Amino acid sequence: MSKFNNYFLMEDVQDIAQYVKEKTDVFSPNAVLTVKEIGDGNLNYVFLVKEEATNTSIIVKQAGEALRISKAMRVSTDRNRIEAEILSLQNQYAPGLVPKIYGYDTCMCAMLMEDLTRFQLMRYALMEFKTFPNFAEHITTYMVNTLLATTDVIINPKDKKELQKRFVNPELCEITEDLVLTEPYNNCKNRNIVEPLIKNFVQKELYDDKALHLEIAKLKFDFMTNAQALLHGDLHTGSIFVTPEETKIFDPEFAFYGPIGYDIGNIIANLFFAWNRGNAYGEQVFCNWILKTTEDIVDLFGEKFLKYFKENVKDTMAKTEGFAEFYLADIMASTASYAGTELIRRTVGMAQVKDMTTIADGQKRATAQKINILCAKKMIMHSKTFKTGKDFTNALLETGGQV
Amino acid sequence: MSKFNNYFLMEDVQDIAQYVKEKTDVFSPNAVLTVKEIGDGNLNYVFLVKEEATNTSIIVKQAGEALRISKAMRVSTDRNRIEAEILSLQNQYAPGLVPKIYGYDTCMCAMLMEDLTRFQLMRYALMEFKTFPNFAEHITTYMVNTLLATTDVIINPKDKKELQKRFVNPELCEITEDLVLTEPYNNCKNRNIVEPLIKNFVQKELYDDKALHLEIAKLKFDFMTNAQALLHGDLHTGSIFVTPEETKIFDPEFAFYGPIGYDIGNIIANLFFAWNRGNAYGEQVFCNWILKTTEDIVDLFGEKFLKYFKENVKDTMAKTEGFAEFYLADIMASTASYAGTELIRRTVGMAQVKDMTTIADGQKRATAQKINILCAKKMIMHSKTFKTGKDFTNALLETGGQV
Repeated sequence: MSKFNNYFLMEDVQDIAQYVKEKTDVFSPNAVLTVKEIGDGNLNYVFLVKEEATNTSIIVKQAGEALRISKAMRVSTDRNRIEAEILSLQNQYAPGLVPKIYGYDTCMCAMLMEDLTRFQLMRYALMEFKTFPNFAEHITTYMVNTLLATTDVIINPKDKKELQKRFVNPELCEITEDLVLTEPYNNCKNRNIVEPLIKNFVQKELYDDKALHLEIAKLKFDFMTNAQALLHGDLHTGSIFVTPEETKIFDPEFAFYGPIGYDIGNIIANLFFAWNRGNAYGEQVFCNWILKTTEDIVDLFGEKFLKYFKENVKDTMAKTEGFAEFYLADIMASTASYAGTELIRRTVGMAQVKDMTTIADGQKRATAQKINILCAKKMIMHSKTFKTGKDFTNALLETGGQV
Repeated sequence: MSKFNNYFLMEDVQDIAQYVKEKTDVFSPNAVLTVKEIGDGNLNYVFLVKEEATNTSIIVKQAGEALRISKAMRVSTDRNRIEAEILSLQNQYAPGLVPKIYGYDTCMCAMLMEDLTRFQLMRYALMEFKTFPNFAEHITTYMVNTLLATTDVIINPKDKKELQKRFVNPELCEITEDLVLTEPYNNCKNRNIVEPLIKNFVQKELYDDKALHLEIAKLKFDFMTNAQALLHGDLHTGSIFVTPEETKIFDPEFAFYGPIGYDIGNIIANLFFAWNRGNAYGEQVFCNWILKTTEDIVDLFGEKFLKYFKENVKDTMAKTEGFAEFYLADIMASTASYAGTELIRRTVGMAQVKDMTTIADGQKRATAQKINILCAKKMIMHSKTFKTGKDFTNALLETGGQV
């Protein structure tokens, strides 16, 4: 009987090597493997396993024992299941754009996945003002293929309902409901982080604006009820690995059936953070690339969406003339709104982004923060007017010109 | 060991009596029970069990063996589970307005419930032009208490997601998606029933109207994605038992998380069928009661809804000024739309209603059918203008005046 039939924390490199050989056929039984821990060991333990002779490597990610005994760990375990299952699914929908999964093991709470150590986290790459000419192409293919393909437009409504049930994700959705769609507007749990220079601004523009609160309430209920597609759920630039040629989207632990605009909006907002950083440091070429990429993402998404829709639509009523265009316009309005909520929550909420926090000059950081908030409000309060890529970049540039 | 630990079809009255004594404490072990089959035995077997000495009685409803071996039976079994669980839940939310459940048994696929044989099915009562002065009061309490209470406004979003998962109902939802929200507009499965006198009318007003199809497509996707509240899912007058004093809503086998307007719309459409029958037979007093009741339902729902909302709202963002009113207006528009789809599907779809089919005079029946269709289109194409009870009855009366 395998020693891996009862959970234990794999800390011994011999155990890791044996585990990998037992659970996959990536390596031959006699392969000489080197094992290196590369994770931060907080929630998960991450090991890189390599066979020098064949230059073959994989990653082992195991959920740790420490949290296993607490309620938090139960969340974490299901989180890992969701992550592994979603990545496997998405590999079918968007092959090459997510890491390959070689196995997931509920007993050891461990996942075997493709080695991506030659990639860089996109957020850090953007903080170095690197540009990625293929990114718009890749991310739009990923989004159209994984999102539209899981809607009632394309898959059988019965299969969709089974997927929906499998990826009900109460704990992770709660994080978004609280941190993104509630607290930034009222600081009700006293967890917001508002820098002194923008305190009065935030009071006026966010905490006191009742018309904004009403739109946020509508969005929060949309997020909680609109089971449109199987989302990534946390699609920011820290969930994306890049090389100059390739893009891999990972970490889909927040996945659930929700509004498509939430995923696209997250991408756009996080590009805007990068633009703000570039703007603060006078990186004009980089900023132009961000603007061009934002426009391409919105417009390419629309093109690919309509093509995919028309080629693959199954639902009889969805074939009605004008429905695809209605559906796309609805997604674009929702994208504008959720780009807005992401811009705001990363600026005043408890989970901020390094693109913003590392703008060294305090005044410039405050300016960037004000741009985020005003641009966000424009997107939320006038979401239905957002249709093309230019609509999104104009909102940013107009706000940038005003602050 | 109990003989009821393995499924068998209870046909012997001794078995039924023994089963009831074993599964509930409604009767004492020595009680002398009479058992009478009262169901039609098609999908379910229904028995009335009575103790004459104490004048106590209950109903036993068992899913039959014949279908148990086929795929259809798997559906049916889960259907019974959903029915029993929903009735138990609703008894907490709206006590006295649903039959009491004394037990549900997954092994025998049997449910023990309150004896309602002194009640009459509301559809048949309305076909006799009987009126029920308490109905608007009862049905609005039922709807506000069971619907609003299961939204993210009131219950914890985590608990809601668990309920939503428990009541994913793919097979029964598919029936609605096909019979209500697809086939009436294109007869794609050749199952519509269109009477010769309205054939051309239906061609022009339903099959050829592309603008209508677009609105129906939007509604179908709303139905499939908008997980707003735990609906009854089939709330017509054949799912309601009445006496002059009491109302009991039963048969919630279509229950799932969907748009609130679907339930309210079904009630209104089915009152309109009764009005059409009354109108064809010159029953003015009855018709006036239907109109008054419709207006009361819409307006009382609004009043009770806002009161319940404001007294029980838990979600922080839902407390935003104006949100309750926005939410109600949205429900009313959706109610108008789904009242429209119900009016249409019962007039040309495969599942028609006796209120309409028993209008003996062919010309009058055709007139009534045209009223349904035109009134429905008004409600669907202008749904956002429907706010008060008068808006609904005016749509009916205006259409009635035009045909």
